[in-house]
Amino acid sequence: MDITTLIGIIVAFCLVGVSILMGGPGSWFINYPSIMIVMGGTIGATLINYPLSEVLSVLKVTKNVFMHKSQPYNKLIPLIVDFSKMARREGILSFDAHLKDIKDPFLVKAFRMSVDGMDIDAIENVLSTEIAYLEERHRLGADIFSTMGTYAPAVGMLGTIIGLVQMLMQMKDPSSIGAPMAVALLTTFYGTLLANLVFLPISGKLKVRSKQEMIEKQIMLEGIISIQNGDNSNIIEQKLKAFISPKARKAFTTHKAREKVNE
Amino acid sequence: MDITTLIGIIVAFCLVGVSILMGGPGSWFINYPSIMIVMGGTIGATLINYPLSEVLSVLKVTKNVFMHKSQPYNKLIPLIVDFSKMARREGILSFDAHLKDIKDPFLVKAFRMSVDGMDIDAIENVLSTEIAYLEERHRLGADIFSTMGTYAPAVGMLGTIIGLVQMLMQMKDPSSIGAPMAVALLTTFYGTLLANLVFLPISGKLKVRSKQEMIEKQIMLEGIISIQNGDNSNIIEQKLKAFISPKARKAFTTHKAREKVNE
Amino acid sequence: MDITTLIGIIVAFCLVGVSILMGGPGSWFINYPSIMIVMGGTIGATLINYPLSEVLSVLKVTKNVFMHKSQPYNKLIPLIVDFSKMARREGILSFDAHLKDIKDPFLVKAFRMSVDGMDIDAIENVLSTEIAYLEERHRLGADIFSTMGTYAPAVGMLGTIIGLVQMLMQMKDPSSIGAPMAVALLTTFYGTLLANLVFLPISGKLKVRSKQEMIEKQIMLEGIISIQNGDNSNIIEQKLKAFISPKARKAFTTHKAREKVNE
Amino acid sequence: MDITTLIGIIVAFCLVGVSILMGGPGSWFINYPSIMIVMGGTIGATLINYPLSEVLSVLKVTKNVFMHKSQPYNKLIPLIVDFSKMARREGILSFDAHLKDIKDPFLVKAFRMSVDGMDIDAIENVLSTEIAYLEERHRLGADIFSTMGTYAPAVGMLGTIIGLVQMLMQMKDPSSIGAPMAVALLTTFYGTLLANLVFLPISGKLKVRSKQEMIEKQIMLEGIISIQNGDNSNIIEQKLKAFISPKARKAFTTHKAREKVNE
Amino acid sequence: MDITTLIGIIVAFCLVGVSILMGGPGSWFINYPSIMIVMGGTIGATLINYPLSEVLSVLKVTKNVFMHKSQPYNKLIPLIVDFSKMARREGILSFDAHLKDIKDPFLVKAFRMSVDGMDIDAIENVLSTEIAYLEERHRLGADIFSTMGTYAPAVGMLGTIIGLVQMLMQMKDPSSIGAPMAVALLTTFYGTLLANLVFLPISGKLKVRSKQEMIEKQIMLEGIISIQNGDNSNIIEQKLKAFISPKARKAFTTHKAREKVNE
Repeated sequence: MDITTLIGIIVAFCLVGVSILMGGPGSWFINYPSIMIVMGGTIGATLINYPLSEVLSVLKVTKNVFMHKSQPYNKLIPLIVDFSKMARREGILSFDAHLKDIKDPFLVKAFRMSVDGMDIDAIENVLSTEIAYLEERHRLGADIFSTMGTYAPAVGMLGTIIGLVQMLMQMKDPSSIGAPMAVALLTTFYGTLLANLVFLPISGKLKVRSKQEMIEKQIMLEGIISIQNGDNSNIIEQKLKAFISPKARKAFTTHKAREKVNE
Repeated sequence: MDITTLIGIIVAFCLVGVSILMGGPGSWFINYPSIMIVMGGTIGATLINYPLSEVLSVLKVTKNVFMHKSQPYNKLIPLIVDFSKMARREGILSFDAHLKDIKDPFLVKAFRMSVDGMDIDAIENVLSTEIAYLEERHRLGADIFSTMGTYAPAVGMLGTIIGLVQMLMQMKDPSSIGAPMAVALLTTFYGTLLANLVFLPISGKLKVRSKQEMIEKQIMLEGIISIQNGDNSNIIEQKLKAFISPKARKAFTTHKAREKVNE
Repeated sequence: MDITTLIGIIVAFCLVGVSILMGGPGSWFINYPSIMIVMGGTIGATLINYPLSEVLSVLKVTKNVFMHKSQPYNKLIPLIVDFSKMARREGILSFDAHLKDIKDPFLVKAFRMSVDGMDIDAIENVLSTEIAYLEERHRLGADIFSTMGTYAPAVGMLGTIIGLVQMLMQMKDPSSIGAPMAVALLTTFYGTLLANLVFLPISGKLKVRSKQEMIEKQIMLEGIISIQNGDNSNIIEQKLKAFISPKARKAFTTHKAREKVNE
Repeated sequence: MDITTLIGIIVAFCLVGVSILMGGPGSWFINYPSIMIVMGGTIGATLINYPLSEVLSVLKVTKNVFMHKSQPYNKLIPLIVDFSKMARREGILSFDAHLKDIKDPFLVKAFRMSVDGMDIDAIENVLSTEIAYLEERHRLGADIFSTMGTYAPAVGMLGTIIGLVQMLMQMKDPSSIGAPMAVALLTTFYGTLLANLVFLPISGKLKVRSKQEMIEKQIMLEGIISIQNGDNSNIIEQKLKAFISPKARKAFTTHKAREKVNE
Repeated sequence: MDITTLIGIIVAFCLVGVSILMGGPGSWFINYPSIMIVMGGTIGATLINYPLSEVLSVLKVTKNVFMHKSQPYNKLIPLIVDFSKMARREGILSFDAHLKDIKDPFLVKAFRMSVDGMDIDAIENVLSTEIAYLEERHRLGADIFSTMGTYAPAVGMLGTIIGLVQMLMQMKDPSSIGAPMAVALLTTFYGTLLANLVFLPISGKLKVRSKQEMIEKQIMLEGIISIQNGDNSNIIEQKLKAFISPKARKAFTTHKAREKVNE
C-alpha cells in the first residue's frame, strides 16, 4: 500500500467533511440529480474523448496509485554490476543460468537478447523503442485523468447554469432564491471537488510514478549497453549511479566496500 | 461503429436532458436566437480562422470519431514478419506478387518502393516525410475542433453580455429580472455544452486516433527498413513488438508458437 | 479573395447584430468612450509590446487573410519534376534560360544558386536559414494579433471596473443601477467581441497560412537538393508527393500518365 | 528613444485617464492603501521569486524598452562581407588593424579569436555558448516582468477580497455598500492596469528585442565561421542575407552594385 | 541568509497585514475551520499527487530558498583554469594531491574520474547523466510547490462554495447575509494568499536556483572535457567565460592580469 495516497485522501476528505458538518446538516450537500449530472457528464465526455479500451485500462492503472512500489535502485544497480562482473569473468552466455532469478521482465528481455547474440545496435533499438512507447502509454493514463479533471468543473458549471436558469425562470420573490441557488451551486461543488481532490492529484501521481519507472528503465538500458561494450564494472557502477540522487548513492557504500573485499 | 463515442454521447446528453427536465419544462432551455448566436458566432470565428477547404474536410474527419477502427497490430506485425521471411527466402522482388493482398496503402507504397529498387535512404526519406506531414494534417483536424471548443464558450459569454445589457437597460423593477437573466444565461449554457460535451471531446478523440495511426505507420517504417537491411525475421519481430504493450504482445504467442513449428 | 474569411466575418457579425437588434435598440451597444478605451488600451499595450515597424507591417500581413492563395502543389511539384528531367538531359546550367518563367522568388533564388555553381551544402544552408527566419517573421505577425486578443478582453474588464467603481461611488438607490451597469459592461462586450471574432481568428488564419507556405518551401528545398544530388525524376516526384495529402496527390495522376507517354 | 513605447504608454494611459475623468472625479480612483497593497504585494512576491541581483538588473534592462536600437543589418552584413574580402586578399591576421573600428563587442571578440589563431571549432563553441547563455539571461529579464504581470492581478484580487470581507462584516444596510465595494474593487483595478498596460507589454517588448539581438548574433556567428572556412564573399553575403526579410535585403542592392563596380 | 526572500516575505505580509488592520479588526480574517480546510485540502491533494518521500524532501529544499548561495563563478572559473595549467605542466595525475582543496563534490568527482584514467567519453556520459537527473530532481521540487499553488486557490474556492451553500440554505433575510458571506470568502482569501505570496514565489525561486546550479555544473563539465582534450588554458578560460555575463567577466580581469605576469 502506498500509504501517502491513502493519507492524502483521508486528510483531504475528512477536512472537507468536517467543514461541511460544522456549518449545518451534511444532507445539504447530497443531491442525487447533481451527482448524476456531474459524474455522468464527465464520464460521457471522457468516453467521447478516449477509446473504451483505454478508459477501462485506466481502472487498472489507478490501482498503481494506491499500491506501494519501493524504489529498487539499491537492488537494481548492484544486480547489473554483478552481471557485468559475470560477463567479464565467464562471458555473456553465462547469464542464461541466472535469468530466472531476475524479476523485472524488461531486464530479463534485455539480458535474453544479449545471450541470444543480438548485436548491440539492435538491442538498443528494441529497448529504446519499448521505453518510448511505454512512456507514451503511461502518459495516456495520466492524460485521461487530467482530462477528467478539466471536464468535471466544466460539467459542474453547466449544472449550475441549468439550476440558475430554472430558478430564475420561476422566481417571484427575490428572498426565496436561497435554497434553489444552493442546490444549483452543488454541481460546481462536486465538479471542483472531483477535479482537485481526485482526478488531478491521481493524474499527477501517475506522472511521478511513470517518471520513476522511466529512470529505472534508463538505468537498465545504460547497464546492458555498457555490459555489451565490455565496460569495467567500476565504470558501469559510476554510470548507473549518475542517474540517482547523492543521498540514494550512499546506500551502496557499504555494499561496495564489501564487494571490494571479496573481489 | 465506435461504440464508445456513441455511449459517451448518449450518457452525457441524456443526463443533461434528464437534469433539465427534472427542474421544469424543457422549453426553458430552447431559445432559437441564443442557439443562432452561439452556433453562428462559433462557425463564423472558425471560418475566419481556417481555410474553407480545411473546415469542410473536418466534416469527413468527424466520421472517424464514430467509426470503429480495430487496432490491427496482431495482424500487421505478423504480416511484416512474413514478408521479411519471404525476402530472405525469395528476395525482395518476390513481394510484387503479394502486394495486392495488402490493404493498407502506406504499406503497399513502402513495399512497392522496395520492389522498384529505390535505395533505403530514399525510401526512409519518403516514408518519414509522409508520416510527418500526415501527422500535421491530423493535428489540423484536431486543432479545428479544439479551436471551436475555445470560441464556443467565448461567444456564449458574448451572448450573455448582450442579454445582460438589454435587461439592465430596460430594468425598472429588480424583481422582474428573473426571466430575461435566465435567457441571457442560455448562450453561456449552449457555449459550455458544445465546448465540453462536443468539440473538446471530439478533438481529443481525433488526437488519440492520430497517435494510434502514427504508431502503426512507425511499425511499418521500422519493418520495411529492417527488411531492406536484411535483418533476421526474429529480430524484426522483436523490434516491432517493442512498439506495443506487453498485453498486446501476448496475442502473438500462439501465433509465434505455430510459426516456430512450421519453420 | 479568400471567400472563407469574408463569409466568416459576415456570418459572425450579422448574427451578433441580429441578436442585438432583436432585444432592443442597437444604440444601446454604441458608446464612444467605451469603444475608445478598448481600442486605445489595446493599441497602446500592443505598441509597448512590439516595435512600431512590426505593428505597421502587420497591417500589410492582414491583407493576406483576405486574399485567396490557391495551393499550387499541383503546379509546383510538376514544375520541379520537369526541371529535374531538364537537369539530367541538359545539365543544371540549362536552367538559366527557364528561370524567367518561374514566379516564386524563393524557387528562382534556389535554382539561380545551383546555376551559379554554389555547392549543395551552401545552398541548403542558405535556403534552410531563409525558411527558418521566414517562419520566425510569420510567427511574429500571428503573435501580434494573438497578443491583441489577450489585451482586448483585459482592457475591456478594466473599463468595466472603472464603470462599476463610478456607478458604486454615486449609487443611492439600488434600483437605479441598471443603465450605468449596462454601460460598464459594454467595454467587456467590445473586448470579448474584438478578441474572439477578430484578433484571435485572424491570428489563427495567419498561422495556417504560414504552415502552408512552409510546406511549399520545404518541397522546393527538398526538390532542389534532390536535383543537385542527381536523383531520378521519378524518385524526386515520390519524395515531393510525400509532403501532400493522398487526395491532393491524385491530381497528378492524369498529369503523370501524360508525362509517361511523352517520355 | 524608442518612440513606439512612448506612444503606446501615452495612448493607453491617456485613454484610461480620460475615461476615468469623464465619469466622475479622478480622486475616486486614488486610494493609497490600495496602491500600497498591490505594489507591495507584487514586489514582495517578486522578491521571493527572484534573487535581488536579478531584480535590480531588471531596472537597467527596462531602460532598453525605451531606448531606440536601430536594426543595423544594413551595416552589419556589409561589414562582415568587407572583412571576408579582406581575409581573402590579406589573410585573417590583417583584421587586427581594423578591430578598433568595430563597435559591437561580440563581433570584436569573434574576430579577435580568429586573429589569435584559435581553431574554428573552439571559436564556434565559445560563441554558441555565449549566445545561448545571453538568451537565457534575456529570458530571465522578460520572465521577471511577466511574473509580475501574473502576481499583480492576483494581489489585486486579494485586496478586493479583503475589502469585501471588511464590507460584509460591518454591513447593516444593503443600500450602503456602494462606496466600500468601489474601494474594494480598486485593488483589482490597479492590478489589472499594471499587468496589462505595464508589466506584460514590457515583458513582450523585451522578448522581441532579445529575438532581434539573437538574429544579429547568429549573423555574426555564421559570418565568422564562413570567413574562417574561406568562403567566397558572395556566398557569405547570400548566407547572411538569408537571415533577414526580403524587404530588408533590398537596402543592400545599391551597396552591392557599387561594390561590384569597385571589385 | 538570502536576504531577498526575507525582504520579500516581510514586504508582502506586512502590507497585507496593514491593509487588513486598517479596515477593521484583524480577527475578522482569522477563522480556524477555514484555515484548516485550505491547508488540509492542499496538503491532502499534494500527498495524493506526490510520494511521501518527495514531499518530505521538499521541506529540506525549501531551506535553500532562505539560504544565500553566492554565485561562485569568480572562484570556479579561475580554479578550473589553474587545474588546466597544472594538467599541462605536471599531467592530470598531479590533480590527486589537490582534490582535497576543492569543496564542490561534483567537481571532485569529475577530477577523480580523470585521475582514475576513465576515458573522456565515459566521463562526459557520467557527468551529463548526473546533470540531467539532478535537474529532473530540482524540477520535481519546484513542481511540488507550483502544484500546491494550483490546489490552494481551488480548495479555497471549494470552501467558499461550501460556505455559500450553507448560507443560502438557511437564508431568510437577504440583509443578514453579510457575516456568513464574509466567512465563506475567507477560504478563497487564504487560498489566494498562500498560492501567490508563498507557494508560487517559492517554486519560482527554486527554478531560478536550479538554473544557476545547472550553469555551474555545465561550466565544470565543459572545463573537465577541455582539460582532458589538452586545450590551452587561455582557450579554456574563453570557453568558460562564455557561460557568464559580460559584467561578471570583468571580475576576472585583475585576476587574469596578475596571472599573466606570473606565467
